[in-house]
Amino acid sequence: MSWKNVSESLCDVALALAVVGDRWTLLIMREISLGSRRFEEIQAQTGMSSLLLANRLKRLESDGVIERRLYSEHPKRYEYHSTQKGKDLDPVLLALRAWSLKYERCGSKKKRPAVHLIYKETGEVIDETWSVPNGKPFHFSDAQGTMSKEWRAERDANKLAFQAGKKKAKAS
Amino acid sequence: MSWKNVSESLCDVALALAVVGDRWTLLIMREISLGSRRFEEIQAQTGMSSLLLANRLKRLESDGVIERRLYSEHPKRYEYHSTQKGKDLDPVLLALRAWSLKYERCGSKKKRPAVHLIYKETGEVIDETWSVPNGKPFHFSDAQGTMSKEWRAERDANKLAFQAGKKKAKAS
Repeated sequence: MSWKNVSESLCDVALALAVVGDRWTLLIMREISLGSRRFEEIQAQTGMSSLLLANRLKRLESDGVIERRLYSEHPKRYEYHSTQKGKDLDPVLLALRAWSLKYERCGSKKKRPAVHLIYKETGEVIDETWSVPNGKPFHFSDAQGTMSKEWRAERDANKLAFQAGKKKAKAS
Repeated sequence: MSWKNVSESLCDVALALAVVGDRWTLLIMREISLGSRRFEEIQAQTGMSSLLLANRLKRLESDGVIERRLYSEHPKRYEYHSTQKGKDLDPVLLALRAWSLKYERCGSKKKRPAVHLIYKETGEVIDETWSVPNGKPFHFSDAQGTMSKEWRAERDANKLAFQAGKKKAKAS
């Protein structure tokens, strides 16, 4: 079974992984769910090369997971938005987040979740033990998020580093 | 942010992806959750090269997601088992399966799930709309699975193709 075959497998997990089964794709979906809409915003926060990001965005679009919306005519520029199919990946991201909160948080600066999430309907904190009440589907839009100061700083630093890299490339 | 940095990010989703964020890793966990314990069984059903699989298994072991158990002294041979941390990835696989059932199933031969799952406690069918009752943690051991005839055939063919490939490599 080669990777091509994975996308033709009968296994449901394999079929899903054929679309979203790499770190970059789910990081892109995380960025879009956080409200990053533009190519360079997503690039700055994922650290992907332009080529890699462009390829992944194209594939996600052709798989119906995201859609492009024109926001500038000259030059032509697009924003990226989740489709319903893309939003329905939120439970996958939530499950990864819960697992990470349980196992990957160690060391003092990592004690708090990167985004403190409150389920709007009930006011509950969404932590690693939380589950959606009454088995409803979960979407991040059902939650109110507050980014930790530390992660905000990390993201600001990503942005600055990205802009500095661009300036440097232009100058050389 | 390079990939190395992803594993040092404060973001919980990124931290989880640094451990399990590629197609192969989650396919390995799928195989182990299906009861494939031995190197060649996992290799036959994922189509990974020996080197790639050995690397991923080593990393999963050092990340505490799986553990090796000796089953033969001469030659030394190991079986691979999920740790609790590995079993706690089951909700991620379940969320991927649900998404796939909703969106990736098309064409006649793909109509049925690869594994028909029944939640033991309640007898409910685990489909794309199902959620764990009372917000309990989910593990595949809580479900009874029946593999579809079609996926069984696909797996048998994977096994035969792998064995034929090995024979051919030996002969040449």
